[in-house]
Amino acid sequence: MSSEFNLIDKFFVHGNLTREDVDLGIGDDCALVTVPENHQVAITTDTLAAGTHFLATASPISVGYKALASNLSDIAAMGAKPTWVSLALTLPEPDEEWLNGFCEGFFGLAKQHHVQLIGGDTTKGPLSITITVQGILPRGEALTRKGAKAGDDIYVTGLLGDSAAGLEVLLNTSKQIKTELELELERRHYYSTPRVELAQRLRHLCHSALDISDGLISDLAHILKQSNVRAYIDVDQLPISDELMQYFAGSREQCQKTALTSGEEYELCFTAPKENREAIKQITTLLNQNVSIIGEIVDEPFTNIQDSVQLHRQISKLDWTLHGYDHFRSNV
Amino acid sequence: MSSEFNLIDKFFVHGNLTREDVDLGIGDDCALVTVPENHQVAITTDTLAAGTHFLATASPISVGYKALASNLSDIAAMGAKPTWVSLALTLPEPDEEWLNGFCEGFFGLAKQHHVQLIGGDTTKGPLSITITVQGILPRGEALTRKGAKAGDDIYVTGLLGDSAAGLEVLLNTSKQIKTELELELERRHYYSTPRVELAQRLRHLCHSALDISDGLISDLAHILKQSNVRAYIDVDQLPISDELMQYFAGSREQCQKTALTSGEEYELCFTAPKENREAIKQITTLLNQNVSIIGEIVDEPFTNIQDSVQLHRQISKLDWTLHGYDHFRSNV
Repeated sequence: MSSEFNLIDKFFVHGNLTREDVDLGIGDDCALVTVPENHQVAITTDTLAAGTHFLATASPISVGYKALASNLSDIAAMGAKPTWVSLALTLPEPDEEWLNGFCEGFFGLAKQHHVQLIGGDTTKGPLSITITVQGILPRGEALTRKGAKAGDDIYVTGLLGDSAAGLEVLLNTSKQIKTELELELERRHYYSTPRVELAQRLRHLCHSALDISDGLISDLAHILKQSNVRAYIDVDQLPISDELMQYFAGSREQCQKTALTSGEEYELCFTAPKENREAIKQITTLLNQNVSIIGEIVDEPFTNIQDSVQLHRQISKLDWTLHGYDHFRSNV
Repeated sequence: MSSEFNLIDKFFVHGNLTREDVDLGIGDDCALVTVPENHQVAITTDTLAAGTHFLATASPISVGYKALASNLSDIAAMGAKPTWVSLALTLPEPDEEWLNGFCEGFFGLAKQHHVQLIGGDTTKGPLSITITVQGILPRGEALTRKGAKAGDDIYVTGLLGDSAAGLEVLLNTSKQIKTELELELERRHYYSTPRVELAQRLRHLCHSALDISDGLISDLAHILKQSNVRAYIDVDQLPISDELMQYFAGSREQCQKTALTSGEEYELCFTAPKENREAIKQITTLLNQNVSIIGEIVDEPFTNIQDSVQLHRQISKLDWTLHGYDHFRSNV
């Protein structure tokens, strides 16, 4: 690594916080951490590459935020508490202004969740970020994709579809001046809210969970396959923002289709028995976070993963062809 | 991620082994692992980018091997036992032949060290590999850069300099047909031996350690700075291969200068009190691994990190200008 790039490592020492369970942080061959007794460690890795996951021209604050948020969302999906993060940053050149912005987005979010940067690597090359986040949780209490049971309510957190609309706005380079609405959707594409605290509080009330990164339908299918059950979704229960309705000029169907397939939402989808409705409501009210019941798990066999989700509008079955269904063949 | 790329994830399930301490492996939002009581976790992340750390035309077997070996070497440098690895692989396209080779190199080495792949991410983009390896070690027993003491012997494992010579051969594209010697040096550049078992056995006998990734002189300076001591190195004690001597047409000085600065060696440099010489010798003999005593830690102050290492040939001081000294200004 060139000297210039080594300098960047120092850059990342600022803005970092100190956790008591980090025995040795940045500056040796490895970091050393302590895991509390009777806990498991949850580990996730995600790459964001310029051109694939974000535009090379994207604000570095949003890139720093999104790179960490997408990983925190995976930790949340297990019901774990995020603790430590490693950052591998590949940059064409050590651009101080870009790094300042990146650190603002990254460390701002890390602080909110009391996550410490414990190491990483800075490399010369095409812009790309790989983050590994670790978290801890009491042994045996993880939320996995496996436990969904017939009769479970299917929940999602937050609002769905805004991320896809925001991405569409971003990619529409033909438009010079963007409306307030478009800018807001762009912002939502980059700035998801990892449901970290909510998931930890809901952990004991749920049967299964995951985060929505490839689109609700694609991701829910993972739960269905691993739990060997089907899902009925009432599309009228999908949480749609006023902004999305406005963006699609009031076409509820277009909003709903987008909500079903929009990727990089980093909201959670989870299933929980009906008797926990009240308890779940209390927690979401306490934390001031929205969740919606969008359907139900049913004990029906399916041979083709494409048939694992049955869409409804109230009592009418829907036979929608959804953009993103392609994913399925290899995704599950 | 496109469906094609999702297919790659399945690719990585083959060839993987199963550890008992992995509670949940590939296939959920996170992996879950268990750390034994009274142990710490050691964590390291390294990126290898095509064009920076290897040629895009390099054999995928060597790339898979090297990407993991460089991380295992960091774990070894702490005296930890490697356990789990996450792999973030960015590829321009899902090239099955390349992936087969990569997996052969990666999983071949992972098996040797009983390390389980617990997750990762496959992304479309310029060829780059980021690996996070974790290891465990009994609480408080880690080898760090901090503990070197006056009177300590300075050791290195293996042979030094071959990696730099191998890289020079690799980068010399003007030469169409390479000699056996050149091909052997190339091979040594890619295939280092992570000193994983050796370091665990030597842990209680050493005061400090690190792995040589930026060159012996640059890396040793980390120990010297963190331990606040100086080093005397007798260049005639540097372990030089016959092949390197042959490559430099018998110029011992050129070999020694190369040994002092050659990066990506992934050998260990460690310091240990003189009274442990015999015990160290017994262990290295048992494991059939070479270590060399190349100098001594002395209790002398230094104001400039460039003066932290004093080179000698027997009793004569040397005033060599070394390629790589540049690193220093920002590296420590």
